[in-house]
Amino acid sequence: MERIRHLAPPPAVLVADPALDDPATYERNVENFIGTVRVPVGIAGPLAVHGSAARGTYYVPLATTEAALVASYSRGAQLITRAGGCTARVLDARMRRAPVFTFADLRETTTAALWVRENAARLRAAAEATSRHARLLEIGATIEGNHLYLDCAYATGEAAGQNMVTFATEALCAELLAHAPVRPRSFAVESNASGDKKAAAQSLLGTRGRRVCADAVIPAALLEERLRVTPAMLAAYWRTGAVAASMTGTIGMQGMYANALAAFYLATGQDVACVAESAVGITRLDVAPDGALYACVTMPSVIVATVGGGTGLPTQRAASRLLSRGEEPPSADALAEIVAAIVLAGEISLTASLCAHEFSCAHHRFAREGANAAGVPA
Amino acid sequence: MERIRHLAPPPAVLVADPALDDPATYERNVENFIGTVRVPVGIAGPLAVHGSAARGTYYVPLATTEAALVASYSRGAQLITRAGGCTARVLDARMRRAPVFTFADLRETTTAALWVRENAARLRAAAEATSRHARLLEIGATIEGNHLYLDCAYATGEAAGQNMVTFATEALCAELLAHAPVRPRSFAVESNASGDKKAAAQSLLGTRGRRVCADAVIPAALLEERLRVTPAMLAAYWRTGAVAASMTGTIGMQGMYANALAAFYLATGQDVACVAESAVGITRLDVAPDGALYACVTMPSVIVATVGGGTGLPTQRAASRLLSRGEEPPSADALAEIVAAIVLAGEISLTASLCAHEFSCAHHRFAREGANAAGVPA
Amino acid sequence: MERIRHLAPPPAVLVADPALDDPATYERNVENFIGTVRVPVGIAGPLAVHGSAARGTYYVPLATTEAALVASYSRGAQLITRAGGCTARVLDARMRRAPVFTFADLRETTTAALWVRENAARLRAAAEATSRHARLLEIGATIEGNHLYLDCAYATGEAAGQNMVTFATEALCAELLAHAPVRPRSFAVESNASGDKKAAAQSLLGTRGRRVCADAVIPAALLEERLRVTPAMLAAYWRTGAVAASMTGTIGMQGMYANALAAFYLATGQDVACVAESAVGITRLDVAPDGALYACVTMPSVIVATVGGGTGLPTQRAASRLLSRGEEPPSADALAEIVAAIVLAGEISLTASLCAHEFSCAHHRFAREGANAAGVPA
Amino acid sequence: MERIRHLAPPPAVLVADPALDDPATYERNVENFIGTVRVPVGIAGPLAVHGSAARGTYYVPLATTEAALVASYSRGAQLITRAGGCTARVLDARMRRAPVFTFADLRETTTAALWVRENAARLRAAAEATSRHARLLEIGATIEGNHLYLDCAYATGEAAGQNMVTFATEALCAELLAHAPVRPRSFAVESNASGDKKAAAQSLLGTRGRRVCADAVIPAALLEERLRVTPAMLAAYWRTGAVAASMTGTIGMQGMYANALAAFYLATGQDVACVAESAVGITRLDVAPDGALYACVTMPSVIVATVGGGTGLPTQRAASRLLSRGEEPPSADALAEIVAAIVLAGEISLTASLCAHEFSCAHHRFAREGANAAGVPA
Repeated sequence: MERIRHLAPPPAVLVADPALDDPATYERNVENFIGTVRVPVGIAGPLAVHGSAARGTYYVPLATTEAALVASYSRGAQLITRAGGCTARVLDARMRRAPVFTFADLRETTTAALWVRENAARLRAAAEATSRHARLLEIGATIEGNHLYLDCAYATGEAAGQNMVTFATEALCAELLAHAPVRPRSFAVESNASGDKKAAAQSLLGTRGRRVCADAVIPAALLEERLRVTPAMLAAYWRTGAVAASMTGTIGMQGMYANALAAFYLATGQDVACVAESAVGITRLDVAPDGALYACVTMPSVIVATVGGGTGLPTQRAASRLLSRGEEPPSADALAEIVAAIVLAGEISLTASLCAHEFSCAHHRFAREGANAAGVPA
Repeated sequence: MERIRHLAPPPAVLVADPALDDPATYERNVENFIGTVRVPVGIAGPLAVHGSAARGTYYVPLATTEAALVASYSRGAQLITRAGGCTARVLDARMRRAPVFTFADLRETTTAALWVRENAARLRAAAEATSRHARLLEIGATIEGNHLYLDCAYATGEAAGQNMVTFATEALCAELLAHAPVRPRSFAVESNASGDKKAAAQSLLGTRGRRVCADAVIPAALLEERLRVTPAMLAAYWRTGAVAASMTGTIGMQGMYANALAAFYLATGQDVACVAESAVGITRLDVAPDGALYACVTMPSVIVATVGGGTGLPTQRAASRLLSRGEEPPSADALAEIVAAIVLAGEISLTASLCAHEFSCAHHRFAREGANAAGVPA
Repeated sequence: MERIRHLAPPPAVLVADPALDDPATYERNVENFIGTVRVPVGIAGPLAVHGSAARGTYYVPLATTEAALVASYSRGAQLITRAGGCTARVLDARMRRAPVFTFADLRETTTAALWVRENAARLRAAAEATSRHARLLEIGATIEGNHLYLDCAYATGEAAGQNMVTFATEALCAELLAHAPVRPRSFAVESNASGDKKAAAQSLLGTRGRRVCADAVIPAALLEERLRVTPAMLAAYWRTGAVAASMTGTIGMQGMYANALAAFYLATGQDVACVAESAVGITRLDVAPDGALYACVTMPSVIVATVGGGTGLPTQRAASRLLSRGEEPPSADALAEIVAAIVLAGEISLTASLCAHEFSCAHHRFAREGANAAGVPA
Repeated sequence: MERIRHLAPPPAVLVADPALDDPATYERNVENFIGTVRVPVGIAGPLAVHGSAARGTYYVPLATTEAALVASYSRGAQLITRAGGCTARVLDARMRRAPVFTFADLRETTTAALWVRENAARLRAAAEATSRHARLLEIGATIEGNHLYLDCAYATGEAAGQNMVTFATEALCAELLAHAPVRPRSFAVESNASGDKKAAAQSLLGTRGRRVCADAVIPAALLEERLRVTPAMLAAYWRTGAVAASMTGTIGMQGMYANALAAFYLATGQDVACVAESAVGITRLDVAPDGALYACVTMPSVIVATVGGGTGLPTQRAASRLLSRGEEPPSADALAEIVAAIVLAGEISLTASLCAHEFSCAHHRFAREGANAAGVPA
């Protein structure tokens, strides 16, 4: 890329703080640096999580410019905590890359697909040689005429792994090109079938990043006292929302996963563009046999890391440290469970505000009167 | 919400700069403020846009922590500019809110739907009385048994309008509740059918925010010289990508809209959670009859504003001003056209890097060696 | 097409009945005729329908080779009838054809789209001149770069109208080609965007054929006595099914619309291939405030006719006449309402058999012991 | 089900032929039998198929009442045959049933899911004990809060297997209920997640029935001579159709699979309601490097059998026998490959008629003048 030389000097306000705005700080994160934007961070909590990796009560940092957002998540978190906390589980973890090869015809494609199956070990070896952290879990193959699509799924440890799996899959492709009995006309390391940064039905059926689930049971009396709604009202709303999701061809059925995801990703230095694929899942609000609210969220594509990307930048690292237990910083699994928990908190709070006809109320107050406003968060 | 009193003092690094980190600055944008995160901004360009609202050559601010992103958009922008620029058009603009009413049965729902159709004028008056800026464009009605879903579409001027249409639609609902010949059992101002912050097939068929299209013709020689690929290579890749999108149940068919959207929204103070619904659309790469590359993007849900949300915060405002022509700050229409143009630039650059097998190359260099790395951006 | 001369004589069994198997009978329905297949018809009912067009109690002819199918629909129909019948409403009717035009670029496409909007009257006149029955209701236009897609929606009276709208839209296209200020490079009368014989998210948002809704309220005691399930059991099952539909990326959420649709279309001479687009919609099973079952189906694409296709063939016509009230044969609207009613009956019966763990039971009995088997239909 | 006693005698025309209309013939296929409808069968061909199971030149029986359908498939078949035939491959075969279990909460669900994984062998044994033919290939498990969905995939030999897998999965469920360490609150043998008779994104990603692919290369000169179009015209149309499919949220991208599927299923006694799930897939029309047309279809859910359902009925069996090679009747694999081949023929013929602006032409002639009409089929 050419250097842009004649640009007028960037506005002073973007580079006001020499310490944090030293271009060297961001050298590995951005090109053509002109300064930083600042996004305010609020904290939501306390949020009690009984996860496999996340165990404890958290104050969750959320970076956003949208009034009432932190307040809403915070009231949901407090409700869950008062009810004894939520359960959360990472159920799967894999990062995917999906190369495509174009052959002459179906005969060649089936030959190549067979070769891939029979040579999985050598392909794995080639892929895993590129990194100490990448472990190839599976190679799927789909034939579409003279196209062969592979679905390469990796464990990538504490990294999100988007680049790691690119390098590994390039090596895997090179191995195929060198040794398969048929030669493709062309290939690309990513066909657009991995789901990278896009919402797809495939996201719900598979996993990209971490698949994580959280649930909570909220006694009816507590719900009514705090959120002015009954479990039956939330369950009835859920039915209208489930139908609405189906009618509109929505991927999954949920309310506002994107709000928490964007705010959390931003605060902790994750790749915020991944919201496009992460903000997909299934929320359910139900009446338990004993009359309590049963609430759960299922998120198949939470993409979080503790290394790489923006996770090591000063302010982002500081925000992540809020989630440490004792000396230990949270693992990627813990981050994913906390994400599911805070998302669950938000879904309950949001739905309650819709059912209690208070959806606009908090937006009004916070946006107009500011964060000191008394009253009901949405 | 209860105040959180006993939280340990937030890490100093988040509040280092007294001027920009004064809590009062962010009082209308966040609750439980503890400081700011800083996201580095790079600029991509020059990018020549022949829009209806955006006319000129721009340097586009992109806030991101992902290495190689700005570099890739910038090389696409420069290619387009060298080829004479791209065309961009806002084709529709509307913000939607979708209330739902539950009646006793289908008979009542059809009665209510009929009443809505016959009383559109009074409903409009009620809705528009809530704001000087909201203009009700259309009320759609869908019956599903005893559920009546309305689709209320508004013009909201220079605001994104997410809250504006909530207030207006609440007033519309109140009017219906007060005057319709049948009374619903329950209702909510948002049913989950508006598409708010989620990817849905509906997004592609309708518009939420601004629908915007951009295209460019790139001479084959220029493409080969700059990006080391031919139009036929890009068109062949597009076919594999179109099939991949279909196979995986992806909403739309595109490469990486989310990268530009998140980075642009963040830099200019838009609601970055809207990436979940904005990162949907259709990219096409084709060989024109004269052998040049024909490239276009269609984005049905670009949500940008020049007022409200984070647009007025100091650093965000500073970044937006980079897009001013002369004295005048850009309009929301201009922002939407610039978004489509930079997205188009990125799709060409990304696809070229995949076809030229250089996808991982720039990531390697920029992430490891930093922004001074010579060499090929992805 | 070349005549096939040397084919061995078709098996005698296909042409055994000279009266009904006279090739002349089918001359306008098939080419290269070699005989007929016979599909057994059973009747399901009585089914009490309170529609706008269908008013009365019906015995519904269903042609199928699948054991237990007619029995299951029949028990659902009887339940509904015992509960006082169901309501049904045709909510919209339109047949669509979606031509596409390819221009040089976005500028030309927007010019053409504008011309279409300004010349709707002349386009309508051209289209409607092709038939006494076609009435153009609406022309939608979608721009995707240099592609212009039109969505032409027609009223087609008692005909399904698939061919009628092709002829009309060809005339509309010819008018555009002759008079628009920009000339497309190419065009086709159908772009694949009309939804013709395919399941699409668009089906749920719009209408192709007839959009029809039916609902019923079934007292809990009756449901328990007849189907051995409670409303709460069906509602709980519905929630698992709604989530299943979302998780698997299903268009709509329903159980087995296809069974009734295929059997009814086949019996009455409709185009059975339309099952591909008709078998889409939303079923809901809910507990009403008084504890009864509330059940409804919403079907956006029922394609039925009383003229054209196979509707005039001797056996098909005979089957349709079973639905006559007095002298009068049923209208297309009445057929659509009857379809929705029998589909509703089937959804209740099927779900009940799943909840009562009797799903396989009837299949066992009917398939092995034949139609005289006593016992519980699925 | 109660017997319907007071129905007026069915119209004589439905029961005219004593031999073929003996109720006993259909006793295991339908209840409340009143006669048969007759659907005319035409044959399309010759069609040369180079499959794994289907090897030879076929005349394909198609039962339809839609004029021009057989003619169009026949001209496509002849074109393929003239070009040397098409390749076809069954790539996978599995019938699926998807039970759901509801537990108290996520903790129990994860316990149950773990038990399923660890007890796969005993579950398999229970399932396979129900049939000599069913073989359990795989058990998938998806957790959604307190819901556990299983995806049980079976090989079912020459049967479609829809009932076989129900019986087997009921046994599997009983085993789980008897032995798992946690007891579900409720369960159902089918949750709506198997894709049974519905179009779902899951269909494209997995297989239900048989996944089959067919492709052909058609020399440009032959295409132009026979169908009056060039490969470039078809490839350009394909691009508009691919975009149309994406824009409208269509499952897959194809033209008219449903026509061939319904007609073939009907003629050969398959379950025609399965068209709802079978009519999904991906068609591609491309220009090969040497300028020929490259055409392929990918069909993930072809559901065909040689035993069970209507396959043994006299006329259906007679139609199937047209596909025998020598003494041997075709296997289910062979039927699937023939289906893919005839579907491929239809896609080429249909697209050509759209590109040559002859789409309505054949419909006009055949429907109005009958099968003796000279001229160009669509």
